[in-house]
Amino acid sequence: MRFELQEAIAVLERTPDVLRALLTDVPEAWVRVDEGANTWSPFDIVGHLIHGEETDWMPRLGIILKHGEARAFEPFDRFAQLEKNKGATLAELLDRFAELRVQNLETLKKLDLQPAQLDLTGTHPELGRVTARQLIATWVVHDLGHLAQIGRVMARAYSDEVGPWKAFTPILGRRG
Amino acid sequence: MRFELQEAIAVLERTPDVLRALLTDVPEAWVRVDEGANTWSPFDIVGHLIHGEETDWMPRLGIILKHGEARAFEPFDRFAQLEKNKGATLAELLDRFAELRVQNLETLKKLDLQPAQLDLTGTHPELGRVTARQLIATWVVHDLGHLAQIGRVMARAYSDEVGPWKAFTPILGRRG
Repeated sequence: MRFELQEAIAVLERTPDVLRALLTDVPEAWVRVDEGANTWSPFDIVGHLIHGEETDWMPRLGIILKHGEARAFEPFDRFAQLEKNKGATLAELLDRFAELRVQNLETLKKLDLQPAQLDLTGTHPELGRVTARQLIATWVVHDLGHLAQIGRVMARAYSDEVGPWKAFTPILGRRG
Repeated sequence: MRFELQEAIAVLERTPDVLRALLTDVPEAWVRVDEGANTWSPFDIVGHLIHGEETDWMPRLGIILKHGEARAFEPFDRFAQLEKNKGATLAELLDRFAELRVQNLETLKKLDLQPAQLDLTGTHPELGRVTARQLIATWVVHDLGHLAQIGRVMARAYSDEVGPWKAFTPILGRRG
């Protein structure tokens, strides 16, 4: 499937409602379950998505548009949310994520990026040259990957509860 | 995490809205994308979930409650939906799934199953003896596993569009 900006935005704008539908008022056990030491719960993952809205996707797009390859992106702290959100409720995080996502997509839509701008390049601190198109595609994949992760984490909470069905349930079998 | 009927129902009753939030009016390319020959698109997966509501979960629970181990479950046809839904729209499938899920959960709630009933056993045609508790836990895991699958299938549609980020994006790397 080829990248199309409108199709990418269509996914990005749905994610807050998907997370709300899945997690709002769900019993706390589901919100805090993880896959063991140093793994993330649904709560942690929503915090991580917030941090991406604040520091990753649109700020990096801004750097590409303003500075091109001359200024490398700030490295993204994948663990920032773990300390930061300790006192927050999930409802607060879901609201915060939705609010930031709406703002970021408004900004993105106003930019009205044309194909030549999507081809503009920037410098990733580890990966080197990347395009604006690749950045936005990665934003979409990042959302969907973390949605898949939440499904997996919650599914695996019942690994021992399904009994013999474990053999028929691929999501329980791998770390993927 | 130990199985609790109310916590299981809390997930099961959210799934139709999660799928609607993710897929309603999303561009058709996302609805029909799959992972190659003999793999499922989000459209196919919603059809599979409908078939589970019609023929798998509650009918099997009914067999356990009525016949115990004496009557084995009907085998579940994992591919029935592929022919059956050829002329349907995704909106129709999402509505149908929601309607069946509501009915099935109403029936489940009315049964007001107590721990002793959750311990009742039935005969799976391939797996042998299973309990009602394991059946309902598997229903939950099945929902979450297919949600994770939809996230993965959609994410992988952009495998070639993320460029160098592919190395940092675990969802693109495995068969999940």
